[in-house]
Amino acid sequence: MATLVILRHGESVANRDNIFTGWSDVPLTAKGRQQAAAAGQLVAATGLQFGALHTSMLQRAIVTSNIVLAAIDQLYIPEYKSWRLNERHYGALRGQNKAAVKARVGEKQIKIWRRSFKTVPPLLDHVSQDRRYDQFGPHVEPRGESLEMAYHRLLPYWNDQIAPRLLDGHNQLVVAHGSTLRALIKYLDHVADADISQVEVANGEPIRYDFDDRLNVLRKQTL
Amino acid sequence: MATLVILRHGESVANRDNIFTGWSDVPLTAKGRQQAAAAGQLVAATGLQFGALHTSMLQRAIVTSNIVLAAIDQLYIPEYKSWRLNERHYGALRGQNKAAVKARVGEKQIKIWRRSFKTVPPLLDHVSQDRRYDQFGPHVEPRGESLEMAYHRLLPYWNDQIAPRLLDGHNQLVVAHGSTLRALIKYLDHVADADISQVEVANGEPIRYDFDDRLNVLRKQTL
Repeated sequence: MATLVILRHGESVANRDNIFTGWSDVPLTAKGRQQAAAAGQLVAATGLQFGALHTSMLQRAIVTSNIVLAAIDQLYIPEYKSWRLNERHYGALRGQNKAAVKARVGEKQIKIWRRSFKTVPPLLDHVSQDRRYDQFGPHVEPRGESLEMAYHRLLPYWNDQIAPRLLDGHNQLVVAHGSTLRALIKYLDHVADADISQVEVANGEPIRYDFDDRLNVLRKQTL
Repeated sequence: MATLVILRHGESVANRDNIFTGWSDVPLTAKGRQQAAAAGQLVAATGLQFGALHTSMLQRAIVTSNIVLAAIDQLYIPEYKSWRLNERHYGALRGQNKAAVKARVGEKQIKIWRRSFKTVPPLLDHVSQDRRYDQFGPHVEPRGESLEMAYHRLLPYWNDQIAPRLLDGHNQLVVAHGSTLRALIKYLDHVADADISQVEVANGEPIRYDFDDRLNVLRKQTL
Protein backbone atom coordinates (compact mmCIF):
# COMPACT_ATOMS: atom_id res chain seq x y z
CA MET A 1 0.00 0.00 0.00
CA ALA A 2 1.38 3.36 -1.05
CA THR A 3 0.19 6.87 -1.74
CA LEU A 4 0.31 9.06 -4.83
CA VAL A 5 -0.09 12.84 -4.67
CA ILE A 6 -0.72 14.65 -7.95
CA LEU A 7 -0.48 18.41 -8.32
CA ARG A 8 -0.99 20.84 -11.18
CA HIS A 9 1.60 23.64 -11.30
CA GLY A 10 0.78 27.08 -9.89
CA GLU A 11 -0.60 29.86 -12.09
CA SER A 12 1.61 30.60 -15.10
CA VAL A 13 1.71 33.86 -17.01
CA ALA A 14 -0.28 32.08 -19.74
CA ASN A 15 -2.95 30.99 -17.23
CA ARG A 16 -3.14 34.60 -16.05
CA ASP A 17 -3.39 35.96 -19.58
CA ASN A 18 -5.84 33.23 -20.74
CA ILE A 19 -3.50 31.93 -23.47
CA PHE A 20 -3.32 28.42 -24.98
CA THR A 21 0.10 27.13 -23.96
CA GLY A 22 0.87 23.41 -24.22
CA TRP A 23 4.58 22.81 -24.74
CA SER A 24 5.48 26.53 -24.64
CA ASP A 25 7.77 27.05 -21.66
CA VAL A 26 6.23 29.92 -19.71
CA PRO A 27 7.14 30.95 -16.12
CA LEU A 28 4.98 31.04 -13.02
CA THR A 29 3.44 34.30 -11.82
CA ALA A 30 4.08 35.51 -8.25
CA LYS A 31 0.61 34.15 -7.46
CA GLY A 32 1.64 30.82 -8.98
CA ARG A 33 4.64 30.62 -6.66
CA GLN A 34 2.40 31.34 -3.70
CA GLN A 35 0.00 28.61 -4.84
CA ALA A 36 2.92 26.20 -5.06
CA ALA A 37 4.07 27.10 -1.53
CA ALA A 38 0.52 26.70 -0.21
CA ALA A 39 0.23 23.32 -1.93
CA GLY A 40 3.54 22.37 -0.33
CA GLN A 41 2.10 23.17 3.11
CA LEU A 42 -0.91 20.94 2.39
CA VAL A 43 1.37 18.09 1.34
CA ALA A 44 3.63 18.69 4.37
CA ALA A 45 0.59 18.39 6.64
CA THR A 46 0.05 14.80 5.46
CA GLY A 47 3.43 13.81 6.91
CA LEU A 48 4.03 11.64 3.85
CA GLN A 49 7.60 10.72 2.98
CA PHE A 50 8.08 10.36 -0.78
CA GLY A 51 10.40 8.07 -2.68
CA ALA A 52 10.52 10.23 -5.79
CA LEU A 53 9.02 13.23 -7.55
CA HIS A 54 8.04 13.12 -11.24
CA THR A 55 7.54 16.24 -13.31
CA SER A 56 7.59 17.52 -16.87
CA MET A 57 10.32 19.28 -18.84
CA LEU A 58 8.49 22.62 -18.52
CA GLN A 59 9.58 25.22 -16.00
CA ARG A 60 6.13 25.97 -14.58
CA ALA A 61 5.98 22.37 -13.31
CA ILE A 62 9.67 22.12 -12.35
CA VAL A 63 9.66 25.34 -10.33
CA THR A 64 6.42 24.26 -8.63
CA SER A 65 8.14 20.95 -7.83
CA ASN A 66 11.13 22.64 -6.25
CA ILE A 67 8.92 24.92 -4.15
CA VAL A 68 6.93 21.90 -2.93
CA LEU A 69 10.05 19.84 -2.14
CA ALA A 70 11.42 22.75 -0.10
CA ALA A 71 8.09 23.10 1.74
CA ILE A 72 8.05 19.40 2.69
CA ASP A 73 11.80 19.40 3.49
CA GLN A 74 12.44 16.58 1.02
CA LEU A 75 14.63 18.35 -1.53
CA TYR A 76 16.94 15.32 -1.49
CA ILE A 77 14.54 12.86 -3.16
CA PRO A 78 15.09 11.98 -6.82
CA GLU A 79 13.31 14.36 -9.22
CA TYR A 80 12.62 12.90 -12.64
CA LYS A 81 11.69 15.16 -15.56
CA SER A 82 9.96 13.63 -18.57
CA TRP A 83 8.41 14.97 -21.77
CA ARG A 84 5.73 12.30 -21.21
CA LEU A 85 4.40 14.47 -18.36
CA ASN A 86 4.41 17.66 -20.48
CA GLU A 87 1.12 19.45 -21.01
CA ARG A 88 -0.96 18.41 -24.02
CA HIS A 89 0.46 20.10 -27.12
CA TYR A 90 -2.10 22.64 -28.30
CA GLY A 91 -0.84 22.75 -31.90
CA ALA A 92 -1.57 25.93 -33.83
CA LEU A 93 -3.73 27.21 -30.95
CA ARG A 94 -0.70 27.79 -28.78
CA GLY A 95 0.06 31.42 -28.05
CA GLN A 96 -3.53 32.40 -28.92
CA ASN A 97 -5.87 34.10 -26.47
CA LYS A 98 -8.73 31.76 -25.54
CA ALA A 99 -11.36 34.53 -25.57
CA ALA A 100 -10.24 35.66 -29.04
CA VAL A 101 -10.37 32.08 -30.35
CA LYS A 102 -13.82 31.66 -28.81
CA ALA A 103 -15.06 34.84 -30.49
CA ARG A 104 -13.78 33.49 -33.81
CA VAL A 105 -14.90 29.83 -33.69
CA GLY A 106 -17.72 29.87 -31.14
CA GLU A 107 -18.17 28.43 -27.68
CA LYS A 108 -19.06 24.93 -28.83
CA GLN A 109 -15.91 24.46 -30.93
CA ILE A 110 -13.53 25.82 -28.31
CA LYS A 111 -15.09 23.59 -25.64
CA ILE A 112 -14.49 20.57 -27.89
CA TRP A 113 -10.86 21.58 -28.48
CA ARG A 114 -10.29 22.17 -24.77
CA ARG A 115 -12.16 19.36 -23.10
CA SER A 116 -13.04 16.50 -25.48
CA PHE A 117 -11.01 13.31 -25.45
CA LYS A 118 -10.46 12.61 -29.14
CA THR A 119 -10.48 15.94 -30.99
CA VAL A 120 -7.09 17.06 -32.31
CA PRO A 121 -6.48 20.83 -32.37
CA PRO A 122 -5.34 22.53 -35.61
CA LEU A 123 -1.79 21.25 -36.12
CA LEU A 124 1.41 23.26 -36.45
CA ASP A 125 2.94 23.09 -39.95
CA HIS A 126 6.29 22.06 -38.46
CA VAL A 127 7.54 20.81 -35.09
CA SER A 128 9.33 23.45 -33.05
CA GLN A 129 12.58 21.48 -32.81
CA ASP A 130 13.25 22.59 -29.26
CA ARG A 131 16.77 21.44 -28.41
CA ARG A 132 15.70 19.96 -25.07
CA TYR A 133 13.96 17.09 -26.87
CA ASP A 134 16.78 16.27 -29.30
CA GLN A 135 18.12 13.42 -27.18
CA PHE A 136 14.79 11.59 -27.45
CA GLY A 137 14.80 11.47 -31.24
CA PRO A 138 12.93 13.36 -33.93
CA HIS A 139 9.46 11.97 -33.26
CA VAL A 140 8.90 13.14 -29.70
CA GLU A 141 7.78 16.70 -30.33
CA PRO A 142 4.18 16.76 -31.64
CA ARG A 143 2.55 19.26 -34.00
CA GLY A 144 -0.53 19.09 -31.78
CA GLU A 145 -2.29 16.52 -29.59
CA SER A 146 -5.76 15.44 -28.60
CA LEU A 147 -6.18 14.50 -24.95
CA GLU A 148 -6.23 10.90 -26.14
CA MET A 149 -2.82 11.30 -27.77
CA ALA A 150 -1.45 12.80 -24.55
CA TYR A 151 -3.03 9.92 -22.61
CA HIS A 152 -1.24 7.34 -24.74
CA ARG A 153 2.19 8.96 -24.42
CA LEU A 154 1.68 9.45 -20.68
CA LEU A 155 0.69 5.85 -19.88
CA PRO A 156 4.12 4.27 -20.53
CA TYR A 157 5.56 6.66 -17.97
CA TRP A 158 2.95 5.62 -15.43
CA ASN A 159 3.53 1.93 -16.15
CA ASP A 160 7.32 2.04 -16.22
CA GLN A 161 8.28 4.75 -13.72
CA ILE A 162 5.46 5.45 -11.26
CA ALA A 163 3.42 2.25 -10.80
CA PRO A 164 6.43 -0.01 -10.02
CA ARG A 165 7.64 2.38 -7.32
CA LEU A 166 4.17 2.46 -5.73
CA LEU A 167 4.05 -1.35 -5.89
CA ASP A 168 7.40 -1.34 -4.05
CA GLY A 169 5.69 0.64 -1.29
CA HIS A 170 7.23 4.04 -2.01
CA ASN A 171 4.94 7.08 -2.05
CA GLN A 172 5.21 9.13 -5.25
CA LEU A 173 4.63 12.80 -6.03
CA VAL A 174 3.65 13.95 -9.55
CA VAL A 175 3.72 17.65 -10.44
CA ALA A 176 2.37 18.16 -13.94
CA HIS A 177 -0.25 19.93 -16.04
CA GLY A 178 -4.02 20.25 -16.43
CA SER A 179 -4.37 17.89 -19.36
CA THR A 180 -1.81 15.26 -18.38
CA LEU A 181 -3.36 15.08 -14.91
CA ARG A 182 -6.84 14.78 -16.47
CA ALA A 183 -5.45 11.90 -18.53
CA LEU A 184 -4.00 10.25 -15.43
CA ILE A 185 -7.26 10.73 -13.51
CA LYS A 186 -9.14 9.20 -16.47
CA TYR A 187 -6.92 6.15 -16.17
CA LEU A 188 -6.97 5.83 -12.37
CA ASP A 189 -10.70 6.55 -11.94
CA HIS A 190 -11.85 4.68 -15.10
CA VAL A 191 -13.57 7.79 -16.47
CA ALA A 192 -15.44 7.20 -19.75
CA ASP A 193 -14.32 9.14 -22.83
CA ALA A 194 -17.59 11.06 -22.87
CA ASP A 195 -17.26 12.08 -19.22
CA ILE A 196 -13.70 13.39 -19.20
CA SER A 197 -14.88 16.84 -20.33
CA GLN A 198 -16.34 17.23 -16.82
CA VAL A 199 -12.99 16.69 -15.09
CA GLU A 200 -10.99 19.79 -14.20
CA VAL A 201 -7.78 20.10 -12.18
CA ALA A 202 -7.13 23.44 -10.48
CA ASN A 203 -3.70 25.09 -10.21
CA GLY A 204 -1.96 24.23 -6.95
CA GLU A 205 -4.62 21.87 -5.55
CA PRO A 206 -3.03 18.54 -4.51
CA ILE A 207 -5.05 15.34 -4.93
CA ARG A 208 -4.16 12.27 -2.89
CA TYR A 209 -4.71 8.66 -4.00
CA ASP A 210 -4.20 5.79 -1.55
CA PHE A 211 -3.74 2.41 -3.22
CA ASP A 212 -3.87 -1.19 -2.12
CA ASP A 213 -1.05 -3.58 -3.01
CA ARG A 214 -2.60 -4.24 -6.45
CA LEU A 215 -2.87 -0.50 -7.19
CA ASN A 216 -6.61 -0.38 -6.74
CA VAL A 217 -7.72 3.02 -5.43
CA LEU A 218 -8.73 2.71 -1.76
CA ARG A 219 -9.37 6.42 -1.26
CA LYS A 220 -9.19 9.63 -3.26
CA GLN A 221 -9.06 12.98 -1.53
CA THR A 222 -8.43 16.60 -2.49
CA LEU A 223 -6.03 18.00 0.12
CA MET B 1 35.66 17.30 -26.34
CA ALA B 2 33.31 18.47 -23.62
CA THR B 3 33.20 20.92 -20.74
CA LEU B 4 32.71 20.50 -17.01
CA VAL B 5 31.68 23.36 -14.74
CA ILE B 6 32.03 22.82 -11.00
CA LEU B 7 30.51 25.12 -8.39
CA ARG B 8 30.45 25.22 -4.62
CA HIS B 9 27.06 26.15 -3.14
CA GLY B 10 26.39 29.71 -2.01
CA GLU B 11 26.94 30.79 1.61
CA SER B 12 25.04 28.62 4.10
CA VAL B 13 24.00 29.67 7.59
CA ALA B 14 26.85 27.46 8.86
CA ASN B 15 29.37 29.25 6.61
CA ARG B 16 28.07 32.56 7.94
CA ASP B 17 28.27 31.40 11.57
CA ASN B 18 31.68 29.69 11.10
CA ILE B 19 30.36 26.23 12.08
CA PHE B 20 31.68 22.80 11.05
CA THR B 21 28.87 21.27 9.00
CA GLY B 22 29.56 18.25 6.80
CA TRP B 23 26.42 16.16 6.33
CA SER B 24 24.21 18.46 8.44
CA ASP B 25 21.53 19.85 6.15
CA VAL B 26 21.63 23.60 6.62
CA PRO B 27 19.94 26.21 4.38
CA LEU B 28 21.49 28.99 2.31
CA THR B 29 21.55 32.56 3.61
CA ALA B 30 20.05 35.38 1.52
CA LYS B 31 23.64 36.20 0.52
CA GLY B 32 24.11 32.57 -0.49
CA ARG B 33 21.10 32.76 -2.81
CA GLN B 34 22.52 35.93 -4.36
CA GLN B 35 25.87 34.18 -4.85
CA ALA B 36 24.08 31.30 -6.57
CA ALA B 37 22.23 33.69 -8.89
CA ALA B 38 25.46 35.54 -9.70
CA ALA B 39 27.20 32.22 -10.41
CA GLY B 40 24.28 31.35 -12.68
CA GLN B 41 24.85 34.55 -14.65
CA LEU B 42 28.54 33.67 -15.08
CA VAL B 43 27.61 30.20 -16.34
CA ALA B 44 24.91 31.67 -18.61
CA ALA B 45 27.51 33.98 -20.15
CA THR B 46 29.49 30.95 -21.38
CA GLY B 47 26.55 29.94 -23.57
CA LEU B 48 27.18 26.31 -22.62
CA GLN B 49 24.34 23.83 -23.00
CA PHE B 50 24.53 21.08 -20.38
CA GLY B 51 23.49 17.45 -20.64
CA ALA B 52 23.01 16.99 -16.90
CA LEU B 53 23.55 18.52 -13.48
CA HIS B 54 24.97 16.52 -10.57
CA THR B 55 24.57 17.59 -6.97
CA SER B 56 24.53 16.24 -3.44
CA MET B 57 21.64 15.25 -1.17
CA LEU B 58 22.05 18.43 0.89
CA GLN B 59 19.76 21.41 0.40
CA ARG B 60 22.49 24.08 0.22
CA ALA B 61 23.77 22.40 -2.96
CA ILE B 62 20.33 21.47 -4.35
CA VAL B 63 18.89 24.98 -3.91
CA THR B 64 22.04 26.47 -5.47
CA SER B 65 21.57 24.03 -8.38
CA ASN B 66 17.98 25.09 -8.94
CA ILE B 67 18.90 28.79 -8.86
CA VAL B 68 21.68 28.17 -11.41
CA LEU B 69 19.44 26.10 -13.71
CA ALA B 70 16.85 28.88 -13.68
CA ALA B 71 19.54 31.48 -14.44
CA ILE B 72 20.80 29.52 -17.44
CA ASP B 73 17.24 28.64 -18.57
CA GLN B 74 18.00 24.91 -18.50
CA LEU B 75 15.68 23.77 -15.71
CA TYR B 76 14.67 20.85 -17.93
CA ILE B 77 17.99 18.98 -17.84
CA PRO B 78 18.30 15.90 -15.62
CA GLU B 79 19.39 16.72 -12.06
CA TYR B 80 21.02 13.83 -10.23
CA LYS B 81 21.44 13.92 -6.44
CA SER B 82 24.00 11.63 -4.86
CA TRP B 83 25.36 11.14 -1.34
CA ARG B 84 28.73 10.62 -3.05
CA LEU B 85 28.79 14.37 -3.74
CA ASN B 86 27.90 15.27 -0.14
CA GLU B 87 30.34 17.40 1.82
CA ARG B 88 33.02 15.56 3.77
CA HIS B 89 31.53 14.30 7.05
CA TYR B 90 33.11 16.27 9.86
CA GLY B 91 32.39 13.66 12.54
CA ALA B 92 32.17 14.95 16.10
CA LEU B 93 33.30 18.40 14.95
CA ARG B 94 30.02 19.05 13.23
CA GLY B 95 27.90 21.73 14.82
CA GLN B 96 30.96 23.20 16.59
CA ASN B 97 32.17 26.74 16.06
CA LYS B 98 35.52 26.76 14.27
CA ALA B 99 36.93 29.61 16.37
CA ALA B 100 35.96 27.84 19.59
CA VAL B 101 37.57 24.59 18.42
CA LYS B 102 40.68 26.51 17.42
CA ALA B 103 40.88 28.13 20.85
CA ARG B 104 40.63 24.66 22.41
CA VAL B 105 42.99 22.62 20.21
CA GLY B 106 45.25 25.24 18.63
CA GLU B 107 45.73 26.56 15.12
CA LYS B 108 47.97 23.72 13.96
CA GLN B 109 45.52 20.94 14.88
CA ILE B 110 42.48 22.65 13.37
CA LYS B 111 44.38 23.33 10.15
CA ILE B 112 45.22 19.62 9.93
CA TRP B 113 41.59 18.63 10.53
CA ARG B 114 40.36 21.14 7.96
CA ARG B 115 42.88 20.90 5.17
CA SER B 116 45.06 17.76 5.34
CA PHE B 117 44.36 14.82 3.08
CA LYS B 118 44.59 11.84 5.42
CA THR B 119 43.64 13.03 8.90
CA VAL B 120 40.29 11.74 10.17
CA PRO B 121 38.35 14.11 12.47
CA PRO B 122 37.11 12.87 15.86
CA LEU B 123 34.37 10.36 15.01
CA LEU B 124 30.75 10.38 16.09
CA ASP B 125 29.86 7.55 18.48
CA HIS B 126 26.96 6.51 16.25
CA VAL B 127 25.83 7.28 12.71
CA SER B 128 22.93 9.72 12.53
CA GLN B 129 20.63 7.31 10.68
CA ASP B 130 19.12 10.03 8.53
CA ARG B 131 16.17 8.47 6.69
CA ARG B 132 17.26 9.90 3.33
CA TYR B 133 20.16 7.43 3.18
CA ASP B 134 18.18 4.32 4.19
CA GLN B 135 17.71 3.18 0.60
CA PHE B 136 21.49 2.94 0.12
CA GLY B 137 22.02 0.50 2.97
CA PRO B 138 23.42 0.83 6.46
CA HIS B 139 27.02 1.57 5.54
CA VAL B 140 26.64 4.81 3.60
CA GLU B 141 26.46 7.29 6.45
CA PRO B 142 29.92 7.82 7.97
CA ARG B 143 30.83 8.69 11.55
CA GLY B 144 33.43 11.08 10.16
CA GLU B 145 35.70 11.29 7.10
CA SER B 146 39.17 12.41 6.12
CA LEU B 147 39.40 14.19 2.79
CA GLU B 148 40.93 10.97 1.47
CA MET B 149 37.84 8.98 2.53
CA ALA B 150 35.60 11.53 0.78
CA TYR B 151 37.85 11.30 -2.29
CA HIS B 152 37.43 7.53 -2.47
CA ARG B 153 33.64 7.61 -2.17
CA LEU B 154 33.44 10.45 -4.70
CA LEU B 155 35.54 8.80 -7.41
CA PRO B 156 33.06 6.04 -8.34
CA TYR B 157 30.51 8.77 -9.04
CA TRP B 158 32.96 10.57 -11.31
CA ASN B 159 33.87 7.36 -13.11
CA ASP B 160 30.34 5.99 -13.49
CA GLN B 161 28.14 9.07 -13.88
CA ILE B 162 30.14 12.11 -14.97
CA ALA B 163 33.13 10.93 -17.04
CA PRO B 164 31.07 8.74 -19.44
CA ARG B 165 28.74 11.63 -20.21
CA LEU B 166 31.69 13.93 -20.93
CA LEU B 167 33.21 11.24 -23.14
CA ASP B 168 29.86 11.16 -25.00
CA GLY B 169 30.36 14.88 -25.70
CA HIS B 170 27.79 16.22 -23.23
CA ASN B 171 28.79 19.15 -21.01
CA GLN B 172 28.23 18.50 -17.30
CA LEU B 173 27.53 20.76 -14.34
CA VAL B 174 28.49 19.75 -10.78
CA VAL B 175 27.19 21.74 -7.81
CA ALA B 176 28.70 20.44 -4.60
CA HIS B 177 30.76 21.31 -1.53
CA GLY B 178 34.16 22.66 -0.54
CA SER B 179 35.75 19.33 0.32
CA THR B 180 34.21 17.18 -2.41
CA LEU B 181 35.24 19.76 -5.00
CA ARG B 182 38.76 19.88 -3.51
CA ALA B 183 38.82 16.10 -3.89
CA LEU B 184 37.67 16.33 -7.50
CA ILE B 185 40.24 19.05 -8.26
CA LYS B 186 42.92 16.84 -6.67
CA TYR B 187 41.96 14.08 -9.09
CA LEU B 188 41.60 16.24 -12.22
CA ASP B 189 44.72 18.38 -11.61
CA HIS B 190 46.88 15.54 -10.17
CA VAL B 191 47.51 17.47 -6.95
CA ALA B 192 49.90 15.71 -4.52
CA ASP B 193 48.57 14.73 -1.08
CA ALA B 194 50.88 17.25 0.57
CA ASP B 195 49.73 20.10 -1.68
CA ILE B 196 45.95 19.72 -1.35
CA SER B 197 45.96 21.85 1.82
CA GLN B 198 46.68 24.83 -0.47
CA VAL B 199 43.56 24.30 -2.58
CA GLU B 200 40.46 26.28 -1.62
CA VAL B 201 37.13 26.57 -3.41
CA ALA B 202 35.08 29.71 -2.75
CA ASN B 203 31.28 29.76 -2.40
CA GLY B 204 29.55 30.55 -5.68
CA GLU B 205 32.67 30.75 -7.86
CA PRO B 206 32.29 28.49 -10.95
CA ILE B 207 35.39 26.75 -12.33
CA ARG B 208 35.40 25.55 -15.92
CA TYR B 209 37.37 22.55 -17.24
CA ASP B 210 37.61 21.89 -20.97
CA PHE B 211 38.64 18.34 -21.85
CA ASP B 212 39.92 16.56 -24.91
CA ASP B 213 38.33 13.33 -26.07
CA ARG B 214 40.45 11.30 -23.61
CA LEU B 215 39.44 13.54 -20.68
CA ASN B 216 42.78 15.27 -20.47
CA VAL B 217 42.39 18.86 -19.23
CA LEU B 218 42.95 21.28 -22.11
CA ARG B 219 42.12 24.40 -20.12
CA LYS B 220 41.04 25.34 -16.61
CA GLN B 221 39.47 28.69 -15.90
CA THR B 222 37.69 30.37 -13.01
CA LEU B 223 34.61 32.09 -14.47
